[in-house]
Amino acid sequence: MTMIRFAPTGTALAWDDWVAQRLRQMEAWLAAHLPADAPAGLAQAMRYAVLDGGKRLRPLLALAAWEAVVPGDEQADPEPTDVVWAAAGAVELIHAYSLVHDDLPCMDNDVLRRGKPTVHVRFGQAQALLAGDALQALAFEWLTAPPWAAQRPALAVALVRELAQAAGAHGMAGGQAIDLACVGRRIDRAALEDMHRRKTGALLLASARMGALAGQADSAALEAVSAYARALGLAFQIVDDVLDATGDTQALGKTAGKDAAADKPTYVSLLGLEAARACAEAQLEQALAALQALPAARVQRLVDVAHWVIRRRH
Amino acid sequence: MTMIRFAPTGTALAWDDWVAQRLRQMEAWLAAHLPADAPAGLAQAMRYAVLDGGKRLRPLLALAAWEAVVPGDEQADPEPTDVVWAAAGAVELIHAYSLVHDDLPCMDNDVLRRGKPTVHVRFGQAQALLAGDALQALAFEWLTAPPWAAQRPALAVALVRELAQAAGAHGMAGGQAIDLACVGRRIDRAALEDMHRRKTGALLLASARMGALAGQADSAALEAVSAYARALGLAFQIVDDVLDATGDTQALGKTAGKDAAADKPTYVSLLGLEAARACAEAQLEQALAALQALPAARVQRLVDVAHWVIRRRH
Repeated sequence: MTMIRFAPTGTALAWDDWVAQRLRQMEAWLAAHLPADAPAGLAQAMRYAVLDGGKRLRPLLALAAWEAVVPGDEQADPEPTDVVWAAAGAVELIHAYSLVHDDLPCMDNDVLRRGKPTVHVRFGQAQALLAGDALQALAFEWLTAPPWAAQRPALAVALVRELAQAAGAHGMAGGQAIDLACVGRRIDRAALEDMHRRKTGALLLASARMGALAGQADSAALEAVSAYARALGLAFQIVDDVLDATGDTQALGKTAGKDAAADKPTYVSLLGLEAARACAEAQLEQALAALQALPAARVQRLVDVAHWVIRRRH
Repeated sequence: MTMIRFAPTGTALAWDDWVAQRLRQMEAWLAAHLPADAPAGLAQAMRYAVLDGGKRLRPLLALAAWEAVVPGDEQADPEPTDVVWAAAGAVELIHAYSLVHDDLPCMDNDVLRRGKPTVHVRFGQAQALLAGDALQALAFEWLTAPPWAAQRPALAVALVRELAQAAGAHGMAGGQAIDLACVGRRIDRAALEDMHRRKTGALLLASARMGALAGQADSAALEAVSAYARALGLAFQIVDDVLDATGDTQALGKTAGKDAAADKPTYVSLLGLEAARACAEAQLEQALAALQALPAARVQRLVDVAHWVIRRRH
């Protein structure tokens, strides 16, 4: 598994332990649930696209949101249930498939991702296209898995609907269409935010909401988690733009400087580096403020995730 | 709407009337439920990929299977419900997205589909890729639409699961991976059948099963519909191969002779033309035999669909 460096936070040690455990569990869950035997090398391409890499921000966000609302003992870290693992896995599949397709020559034409050759470099474009398609289908299959989906069908329907809307034409795919249309054009801050709210924000929001839904959040708690995740999503994107402008390819595990090279509008190109950083901090404050509507004893994981997003180096 | 020529069957007039009405209704349903306003031209590409073309075999199969099992008056054509329209629409979206991706230069590199320029020829490869991705997500969104999905969540879960498995790594995407791997290689009949059982058979089977599930089929009826659809799916593919070898591009609305040109194994290349035709007829008989487990008064639409599949000219 790729080692991940964690920036220090107020609860660094506990966070490190928690995240290391959850990442181990998530990796094992994904490895056990991805197909091992699909025809003609398709399973290998799917596994390569998902396993052994990535920050796993979306699954961790789902797990943290679940912990913030799930009924039970407030002191211990509750053991994730089948349904929250399925939700966490499904959002990661959608993210992974979007990267595979986004890296194709007809899109961003990138050769490096998560520190490895991209899927189409390794397996060919046609197989990469199919692997992405199959990963999207698998996400929805996971959200309808027995026995839990048969026992709680209304929850499964809610999860499928959240994810389908986040991934679709008004969410992630729509944001990518705006992104394509924006290359080489000047857009204002409102248009940039609209693009990112769809392109990355929608799936981050869905990750948090799906975790909260899996934890049986009431409507007030679901709204608090949603407000948190909207601000977090924006902060995440601003930090992404800052890292693309300032990071190096090795630390990022993907090609640095590619937004500028592609003449894409970013928060850095629009606001400048320092103002972009300040904007990310302001979104962090807004995300943390939203958590005040939840029991203080339960929100530490969401607080930690937010700090991690802002302070990350890749 | 593209006019479709129907080959004569034993109940030609009634079938023609039924299918014309259902196609009008389906087209209106699709037009009303596809996004009109997704960002940056994405909605237009999605609508172009789905509307105004195609035989609509999969939706008609879902509707016919629904009619064969749904409780009610056996004499009249029952009026389709919201849930069976959603099922019929969703299988067509999965089919449409698979065509968009299959036509891309990194796959079959085709420029003509349903008598029109392919989506990437018209909108560019990146937009075609995104439109396909968004269509897949939309299929699952449709299967979880209120109010019916909230009232019958267990049915919605069953429909999502059928479709996700049919579209995924062990179904359609897996079949396409085999197809890619087979170009220029000799495979035997068992391997050819396995490929088609996944590549086209899985979604045809899901179409019939989803229609039957929407009609509250009991397990015996569901199994009869499934046996019918498995034989129909194989017959469909054999006829497809015969038409590719014998048809002309204008009648097909897609490039004829491309399997041979691409050196792909087909039933015609494996068995010869006459044996392939005989094999399709044998599958037709098997499909019709499976229907004997259902009430004779209810199966006429499925009988007609089967004859249509075998006798079609495009």
